[in-house]
Order: sequence, then C-alpha cells, then structure tokens
Amino acid sequence: MSKRPPSAEDDFVARLIRPLAGEGAFNLEDDAALLVPPRGHDLVLKTDAIVMGVHSFPDDPPDLVARKALRMNLSDLAGKGAKPLGFLLTLALPRNPDQAWLAHFFEGLAEDSKSFACPLLGGDTTRTTGPFSASIIIIGAARRGRMPTRLDARAGDLIAVTGTIGDAALGLFQRLEPERAALWGLSADEHEHLASRYMLPQPRNVLAATIARHARAAMDISDGLVLDLERLCRASGLSARLDADGVPLSPAARKALGTDQALLGTILAGGDDYELLVTLPRDSWGSFSAECEAKGVAATLIGETLSGEAGRVSVMASGRELALEQSGFSHL
Amino acid sequence: MSKRPPSAEDDFVARLIRPLAGEGAFNLEDDAALLVPPRGHDLVLKTDAIVMGVHSFPDDPPDLVARKALRMNLSDLAGKGAKPLGFLLTLALPRNPDQAWLAHFFEGLAEDSKSFACPLLGGDTTRTTGPFSASIIIIGAARRGRMPTRLDARAGDLIAVTGTIGDAALGLFQRLEPERAALWGLSADEHEHLASRYMLPQPRNVLAATIARHARAAMDISDGLVLDLERLCRASGLSARLDADGVPLSPAARKALGTDQALLGTILAGGDDYELLVTLPRDSWGSFSAECEAKGVAATLIGETLSGEAGRVSVMASGRELALEQSGFSHL
Repeated sequence: MSKRPPSAEDDFVARLIRPLAGEGAFNLEDDAALLVPPRGHDLVLKTDAIVMGVHSFPDDPPDLVARKALRMNLSDLAGKGAKPLGFLLTLALPRNPDQAWLAHFFEGLAEDSKSFACPLLGGDTTRTTGPFSASIIIIGAARRGRMPTRLDARAGDLIAVTGTIGDAALGLFQRLEPERAALWGLSADEHEHLASRYMLPQPRNVLAATIARHARAAMDISDGLVLDLERLCRASGLSARLDADGVPLSPAARKALGTDQALLGTILAGGDDYELLVTLPRDSWGSFSAECEAKGVAATLIGETLSGEAGRVSVMASGRELALEQSGFSHL
Repeated sequence: MSKRPPSAEDDFVARLIRPLAGEGAFNLEDDAALLVPPRGHDLVLKTDAIVMGVHSFPDDPPDLVARKALRMNLSDLAGKGAKPLGFLLTLALPRNPDQAWLAHFFEGLAEDSKSFACPLLGGDTTRTTGPFSASIIIIGAARRGRMPTRLDARAGDLIAVTGTIGDAALGLFQRLEPERAALWGLSADEHEHLASRYMLPQPRNVLAATIARHARAAMDISDGLVLDLERLCRASGLSARLDADGVPLSPAARKALGTDQALLGTILAGGDDYELLVTLPRDSWGSFSAECEAKGVAATLIGETLSGEAGRVSVMASGRELALEQSGFSHL
C-alpha cells in the first residue's frame, strides 16, 4: 500500500546486486528472468529463507550469512543429484539498512555464486517493518527422470551418509553454552572446526552426478539426521534401523562425545549438517562409495530401510535401541 | 539459530498448503520440486513479495491479499508472453498466527491457483519476529526465443496498453482519502469498480500468446504507466512520446478526472494497474488489436518510441508537454 519513488538506498542495492547477474538476467533490466532449460534435463526448484535473529545471530559476519543462505539451497540440489543453474533472491529490507553490512552480505553472496557457478537470475527487493530477511530460490538441472526423491526408497536399501554428522550442532552448542563446551577439552583447531561447520557448511555438490547415478532415495540433511531420515522413511512408506555406532564423526565430535555421552542426541538430532542422506540398492554401495571417495568425500553406511511402520526409525547402539531425548529440530 | 520441533501450528499450515500442490510437488513430501520443461519452450521466472502492513492493509480480506499476490506474479508472466507452469511460496509467519486469517488466505490462493491453472510446486515456511509476509516465485513457459523483454523496443515502434489505466490508483486514493474522493460524485458501482481494480487486479494472461506473437518489447504495468514506460525506454536505449489524451480510462476514472484535472498524475503515475505495456512494429498493430479484442480485452495506442535520451518520456496533452507532479512510484 505504501509505495515510494526509488531512493539512493535502492540504487545502492541495485549496484550491489547487478554484478551477480548471470545470462538470462538481462543485467536485471527486465522484470523477469529467462532460463533456457538444458536439453534432456528436468528442473529442480527449491526455496529456503533466512530471517535475521531467527536463523542467524545479529553479530554473524554478513558475508557468511549470505554464503550459508546460498549453500543451504545448493545442498538441496546436491541431494537431488542436480547441477545448479542459478538463483533468485528476495530481500526484505528494514528502513535505513546498514549499508556496510549489506555490502559485505553481497560480497559473500558474489563469492559463492561464482565458486559454485550459480549466477543470480533475478529477484525482488521489498521493505519490511520487521527484520532483514533473504529468501533464495535455487534452480537446478537433473538428468531427465533421474532425480531421486524422499519417496523412492525400497525395503532393504542400504542407508548411507556423506562426510561427518553432528559437527554443526556441536558448533552451535559451544557458541550458545561456552562454559559447558569448555569441558569437552577441545583444541583450538577442533573448536574452530565445529564453529566453521555451523557457520559455513560445505554442500556436497561435487557428488550430484554420483547421487543421480546410484541413489534410490536421497535428500540433504538440514534438520537433523534422525528427523530427516524419519521424513524420508515416511514419504517412502518404510521404517529404518539406524546404527548410531556407525554414524561418522569428526575427531572433534568424537572427543566431545567421549566426555559427555548425552551429546549423542545433539549429534544425531541437531541440524545444519548439510551432508547427504541416501538409500542404495545393495549392489550399488561399492561403486557409490568409490565415486564419493574419488571426489574427496567419505561415504559411510549407517543402517538399512525396512518394511514396517512408515516413518519409524529405530536408533540402535551397542545392540540396544536408544530413546533420543531430542527427536530433532525442524527449520519451520 | 533457534530451531524447534514441528508444532500443531505447522501441521495446520501443512494441511492448508498441501491441497494446492500440483504434479512435480510430490504432495510436498519431497524437499524439492520437479519441473519437466515443455519442449520447445524457455522458462520465465519472476518473484514478487508482499509484506503485511507494507503492501496490504491489516484489514484487507486475507483471501484477496493472497489472490492479489498470485495475480501480481501472473501479470508478469502475461507481460512476457508466457503461460504459467506453477509457483513456489515462501511464508514468513509471526508467532501464534491467526489461524482463521491463514485459512482464508489459503482459500483465496487455492481459488486463483485453480482458475489460472497455476499449481503450487513447493515452498518454505519460516518464523519471523516481523509481520506476516508471502513471497511468490512464479514459473512460466515462453515459446523458445519468443519472450519479449524491456530491452527489445526499436525507435518508431507504436506503444500500446491493454484495458484501462489508473483505476487501481484511484481506488487506493478513495480508500486513503474518502472525503476528497466523495467530491468526484461517483455512483456506488463506479466506486466499487475502482475499489476492486485496486484490491483484485485482472491480469491479462489470456493475451500471453498474442504478446509472444506480436510484441517487440513488453512488460506488465505495476509501478505506474509513466515509470514503467521510462524503464522500458531506458532498457531499450530510447525515448518516447506518451499521448495523455489517448490513455484509455474507465467511465469512473473519466468522471473523477472531470472533477479534478490534478488526478491525471495519479492516473498516469499511480501503480497496481496490472495491464500490459507493449511496443509494436507499425504493421503489427492491426492484428495485435484484433486478437486482443477477440480475447475480450481492449488495446489502445498511446504513443511511440523515439531515438533520443534513453528513458526520457514526454507526456503530451492537447499539444503541450506536461510536467507530472509525481513521476511514479516504485514497489521497492
């Protein structure tokens, strides 16, 4: 209802945004973006938003906030075996936004847009009476008919994850409760490892083709391993056994867990892993894990899917079923 | 940073959203949407957000807020000669949202999603400490290589618009300043005409194929005729002459203008028209206007593009150039 003429601020934002524009964005001079879909591919679309103060701390470095926002979406494409084609950005700006903060935000966004070959296609900037927020819509291309979903698992599939689990959740924990985390006795490097895994995830886009080739069902892990596996199982109409002892941990996470077994809940149910969760036919594991290793990412078997109550995940450790204190967090 | 388990509220939202899901949305059980691009077409992408209290009044009927949000985006596709394929929705919800309000919002969204054949493909729901906001990302298909942009006008093109101009701006005016608007002497029907043109635009998606066939440059008019024509001219490196006397007005707008000539600025520079602005080669006007008429929408010539200072629009009335008081509003 309240519109107003373009201001110096708007020009400032336009100057920050324009350098990110890719082909089909018409230097942001048109009111829509054009995308020529690659032949023989389907398009994969995903949107994920960050709201300042809800998904990030006010004192987070703005370039890292931006990079994480893009990487959250890139990770979704990796989980769908899709290659990034570009993204749209919707910004909601409070009045008199901090220009230096915004400039750093766009520096970070430009850096990752370039390094992940994911250009800006378009977007919208709007005023808000609330906090700064950024919504990213990412578009990727998957080989026609090859996109794995959460619905595609079959009973008896092997369940695997990439990288290590729980680092980001522990990184957030040590930030929120530094006194308790001091008892873990981590080295400075280990502390920094967990912190950076929370602040700047490493989405597994190098594995997109491998996922498309081998995975039956696949998704990225953003809301906690257990909750995300439950969702995959529910969508596929299956249950699953998750071997907690087999979940891959970083040295830092292993050391923390050694001092406090209760952290297993944080590790298995905390969010922000941005690793990939896949189910595989049994005879695909060999080639899948070899391809992952060739790309520099470890893959680890952590359980199997079962026929049974849809969405039920039994977390087993030392032969007994665990009752997790936290059943995982949702982004919502 | 603050995540939390799914709540009864989230389930409520999921129940509201799911019925809108189209093919490729996997009943919203996957974490991404799949879109099979129609053969021989390019994709057109556009995003536009509404923030409660910024782009809508708190007492606006929620179903109309939702329908306007979708129609703003549908209008962009019409201006690009593109057919809707679907949309993504990003919601930012304050704590304890009004469930009845949300239910009406989704009723309206479902109604227009169906009537414009534009299914929901996916989305994201997030918490905010600010006001309710909804960001829509719409995806359309344009015949390969046929999408007209703002950059495609050539000097000497005819400039045309669809429908009538200024109704929505007058509808907003009479809402904000009812005492002044009472002097216009409108009938109840005329008052309602202007009010509904503001509240529920009629995007010209029936003309998409006509636009793709005939327009050189095209866009929808959302931020005011003069500002949008300036943008088109700037992007095309041209100037333009706009004949104010020729701008098509509804009977209600004509009556209002008759009582107060200063309203010409509101009409030409106010926003929310959601009509189409096109430039045409001279020999295309006959078939373009005939096709529009066959689809039940009037098209009217309002000027021509000229070589000259890029983005300069001369507004002419009775042979003299007008200096508009308001040079138009931006959505930003």
